[in-house]
Amino acid sequence: MAGRFAIGVDLGGTNLRVAVVTAEGELLEKVTESTKALHGSDRVVDVMASEIRRLTAKHSGPGPLLGIGIGIPGILDLSAGILRKSPNLPGWEDYPVRQEIERRIGAPVVLDNDANAAAMGEFWLGAGRGHDSLFMLTQGTGVGGGIVLNGKIWHGMTGMAGEPGHMTVEPDGPPCGCGNRGCLEQYAGATAIMRMAREAAASGSAAGLARAMRNDPAFGAQNLHVLALAGDKAALEIFRRAGKALGIALSGVINLLNVSVYCFGGGVAGAWDMLQPHILREVRERSFVYNATAANRGLERETIITCALLGPDAGLYGAARLAILKAAEEQQQPSTCRDGPA
Amino acid sequence: MAGRFAIGVDLGGTNLRVAVVTAEGELLEKVTESTKALHGSDRVVDVMASEIRRLTAKHSGPGPLLGIGIGIPGILDLSAGILRKSPNLPGWEDYPVRQEIERRIGAPVVLDNDANAAAMGEFWLGAGRGHDSLFMLTQGTGVGGGIVLNGKIWHGMTGMAGEPGHMTVEPDGPPCGCGNRGCLEQYAGATAIMRMAREAAASGSAAGLARAMRNDPAFGAQNLHVLALAGDKAALEIFRRAGKALGIALSGVINLLNVSVYCFGGGVAGAWDMLQPHILREVRERSFVYNATAANRGLERETIITCALLGPDAGLYGAARLAILKAAEEQQQPSTCRDGPA
Repeated sequence: MAGRFAIGVDLGGTNLRVAVVTAEGELLEKVTESTKALHGSDRVVDVMASEIRRLTAKHSGPGPLLGIGIGIPGILDLSAGILRKSPNLPGWEDYPVRQEIERRIGAPVVLDNDANAAAMGEFWLGAGRGHDSLFMLTQGTGVGGGIVLNGKIWHGMTGMAGEPGHMTVEPDGPPCGCGNRGCLEQYAGATAIMRMAREAAASGSAAGLARAMRNDPAFGAQNLHVLALAGDKAALEIFRRAGKALGIALSGVINLLNVSVYCFGGGVAGAWDMLQPHILREVRERSFVYNATAANRGLERETIITCALLGPDAGLYGAARLAILKAAEEQQQPSTCRDGPA
Repeated sequence: MAGRFAIGVDLGGTNLRVAVVTAEGELLEKVTESTKALHGSDRVVDVMASEIRRLTAKHSGPGPLLGIGIGIPGILDLSAGILRKSPNLPGWEDYPVRQEIERRIGAPVVLDNDANAAAMGEFWLGAGRGHDSLFMLTQGTGVGGGIVLNGKIWHGMTGMAGEPGHMTVEPDGPPCGCGNRGCLEQYAGATAIMRMAREAAASGSAAGLARAMRNDPAFGAQNLHVLALAGDKAALEIFRRAGKALGIALSGVINLLNVSVYCFGGGVAGAWDMLQPHILREVRERSFVYNATAANRGLERETIITCALLGPDAGLYGAARLAILKAAEEQQQPSTCRDGPA
C-alpha cells in the first residue's frame, strides 16, 4: 500500500475540512471551508467534491486514491451511508451523503460519526499508537465518544455505541435534553461548563468570575481555563466538578471495556491540566478494574489515561484511516483476520 | 463438526459440575460434586479429570473430544491458563489449572471467568440465540458480567472486561469492599439485598419482614422474593431499589455497547418479575441509545432486555462452547473471519 493515499473529511456544522493522508499516516495537505457560508447540503457536497477532485489530482503522484472517509456529527445509517439527522447540520435530514459523493467522484466512500473518526485517528497515530484498543471521550459543546477494539471501531447494533455523554453520574442531577438527569454531559461539555460558570457568577460568591463574564460577552470555557490557571477559586471548582463527573463515568467505562488507552479530546480537554487530577482521583477510588490492572504495572499492562494528541486533526486522520481500512478489506479479504477480536 | 462434543466445567466454590455438550448444543450428561468436600486444588483437579475421562469414554460414540472448557470465579491469567486468585477457592492462588488438566487428559483446555462462560452459554443457546452480540449481568452473591461481541467474549487487556458490579450508581452511596462507594453490587447482589432487608427489619417500619427473618435463620433473597410476591411493602421497596440501581447501570452499558441483547442471570435474577419494571423504567428514562434504538423497532433492531434462559447450566454450555470455538479456530483458521467484528 506504500505511496497510496486517502481523503479524510471532517464535515462539521461550522467548518468543512478536507485532508490528503497517505497510507503511512502522513498528512500532505488540508483545506478548510466555512460550512455555514455554503447554504444547503447539495452546495456543501459540490464544494466537498471539487476539493476532493482538486486534491486528488494534485497528489496523485504517490499513487491511486484509496477512498474517501467522512466524519459527520449526528445519527447516521452506516450501512446505507445516509445522514439521518444532525443538530449541527439542519436541512440534511436523510441525506444520502455516501451516494452523492460516490456519484461525483467515482471512489468508494465510508461514513462515520465524527467522534468515532477522531477515536480512530487517535488510535492510529495519537494516544493509541501501538496499542490494540482505545476509548476516546470527546468534550466539545456536548460529550461524545468512540470505541476502537482490536483496530476496528465498535459500532454496536445501530451504530450508536460509545456514547458516554449520557451516562448517569448523579441519579438526581440536573435534567438533560436526552430526558435523563445527571448525565455526564451536564457536567463536562462546554455548554455545561458555561452553565456552571453562570450559576457561580449569579450566586454572588464568585466576584472575579462574574466580573470577567460581564466584561467579555464572548467569555467561554477557554477563558474559564485561564481564570483557573490564575487560581480563581470558582473556576477551579467548576473544573473539579467536571473532572469528578468524568472520573465517575470513566471508572464505569474501564470496568466494562478494560482497554489499555482512554483519551480525552475536544475543546474542553484543552483544560486537561485542570481536569486530570480529579479524573485520576475518582478512577483510583472507584475503578475495580483500573486498580486490579494497575497491579500489573510490572507486566507493562497498565491502563493509560491521557489527553488526546492530535487535536482537531484526529478526525481527519481517522476518516482517512477508515477509507484505507475499507480498501484493504476489499482488496485482500483474509487480511481482516488480523484485525479480528482476540 | 457434527457428532463431536466438548466438556464444559463449572468450577465453583460450592460445587464442581462437569457436562458433556455436543457441538450442536445438546447437553448429553452432567454430574455435580461438592467442591468443598474435596479439600485442596490437586484433589479437586484429580476428581475433575477422572469425571472428564469417564464421561469422554462413555460418550465417545458421537465423535472425538473437541476440548475442555472451564468456567472459574476469580481473577485468571487467560493466556497462561492460571487461576491467580479467587475468593471462592481459597488455597488455589496461582494454580496452573489448564496445565494440570491438559497433563491429566491430553486434550486442549480453555479457561474463562465463570460470568464470561455463562454469557457465552446464553449467547449460544439462551437469550442471545440468533443474535451477534450480548451483554449478560449475573446477580449472585455479588454482581458480575460478561460481554460477547460478534460471537466472541470481549476480555479486554487483562481479561477483566465486563465487570458491571463496581460501576458507580450513587456517588455517595454505601461503601464497597472494592474501595468505591455506591457500586451497583451494593444494591443488586444477594449480599446487598440481605443487607437492605436487615436494615429495613431493624428500622421498625417493616414488622412482617422482621418477623419472617427472626423465624427463619436461613432467610435469604428467595424468601424476600416470596414476601414481595405476597405484597410485603418493605420487600417490594428493596427490589425497587435493586431494580433502580440495575437500570441506572444498564443505561450506561447500553449507551456504551449498543448490543441487541442484555440479559440478567444468577440467583437474584430469579426475582426478575420484581426487578424488571424498575429496570425498564430507568432505562427508558435514562438511556439515550436505548431510546434512539427503540425508534428503530419497525426495522427489527430493538434492544432486548430479558432474564437469562438457561439457569445455572448457562456456564456449562458456555464453557463447552469456548472449547468448541477454540477447536474450530485451530482447525480452520480462515473461519475465524466470519466471527470477526463488523
